[in-house]
Amino acid sequence: MKRIADSAVRRLSLYLRFLEEFESRGLTTISSDELAARGRTTSSQVRKDLSFFGSFGKRGLGYSVAELAARLRQILGLEREWQVIIIGAGKIGEALAQYRGFSQRGFRIAAVYDSDPAKIGRRIDGFVVRSIDTLRADQAKRSADIAIITVPAEAAQRVVTLVVQTGIRAIMNFAPIQLQVPDNVAIKTVNMAMELEGLSFALSNR
Amino acid sequence: MKRIADSAVRRLSLYLRFLEEFESRGLTTISSDELAARGRTTSSQVRKDLSFFGSFGKRGLGYSVAELAARLRQILGLEREWQVIIIGAGKIGEALAQYRGFSQRGFRIAAVYDSDPAKIGRRIDGFVVRSIDTLRADQAKRSADIAIITVPAEAAQRVVTLVVQTGIRAIMNFAPIQLQVPDNVAIKTVNMAMELEGLSFALSNR
Repeated sequence: MKRIADSAVRRLSLYLRFLEEFESRGLTTISSDELAARGRTTSSQVRKDLSFFGSFGKRGLGYSVAELAARLRQILGLEREWQVIIIGAGKIGEALAQYRGFSQRGFRIAAVYDSDPAKIGRRIDGFVVRSIDTLRADQAKRSADIAIITVPAEAAQRVVTLVVQTGIRAIMNFAPIQLQVPDNVAIKTVNMAMELEGLSFALSNR
Repeated sequence: MKRIADSAVRRLSLYLRFLEEFESRGLTTISSDELAARGRTTSSQVRKDLSFFGSFGKRGLGYSVAELAARLRQILGLEREWQVIIIGAGKIGEALAQYRGFSQRGFRIAAVYDSDPAKIGRRIDGFVVRSIDTLRADQAKRSADIAIITVPAEAAQRVVTLVVQTGIRAIMNFAPIQLQVPDNVAIKTVNMAMELEGLSFALSNR
């Protein structure tokens, strides 16, 4: 498959949300113009994004909302359940462990880990925080698909190396540091300060 | 100024982090090749991103690390302090109120708000959670620059409309919903489930 940019994948996630919105309003077909207007983009962008994955819709008739939504769920890998572990039971890890929006999309939090004896054994919303030392053995039994890393920056590379060794191939990193992973591992870094820098940039350059 | 894409602003934030890393290792000059290699991009991308903001570096001599870092801080609006308020004292709001990485970049959390009587008056790491009803009066006195919205999806549009009315022109939204704001307001939505969808996409399409 042609390599698709992260920004295009993000747009597919957005289109899916818009389609679900249209569906809940009882709409059955939608044009690329309408989808584009909802996403503040252009219809040629919408068509280009979708064309990566084959042909959709009929010229002049638009897309079937239900069919396109189903196809996007399939493309985004949302037709199955994914097992997710969280490593780092601090405030952000705790918030994510309790975040309802994950399970709605099929992302099931399977376990929360920490290395701090004061946190191990503590209960977070149904989870008992496990020792990071058990990760390898746990993975041999259970095999999570995605790891969310919410440890401090100085521990993050060590943790991610361990995670990759256990066979996990997708990582979401909240530590404010760029982590090195092998090419066959997908990683996304959410850097809260960088997000705010996008706003301070906007405020400074208007 | 020519409009610059969000993705380019993100890269500027990354370049700044790499430059600070180089600086801490005692490097004084850096080529666009080295900067590109660190960021897993191309040197022509680096030069293109920087060229938006004038000319940097000398052909064949590379960039002065300190000068380029200073210029990027200026471009990103990081030479001043920004007052940030958090609206929504749930788990994510609480985690962000305590996040050290913000103050390091000049983002000062000025106050935390909620509408829940059970949360108002509670202490979070030095902040006493204030009633959202005081926001308008508070803003008349203090004038925060950026609002971080961490309320539930169903309350988010109402809150963001209020925030915009108080004169705030930059919003970071953690509610899993697309919010409508006037064109002169910058908004960034961090959707945790969408970030995971980028990973389930990668796992499904390899």
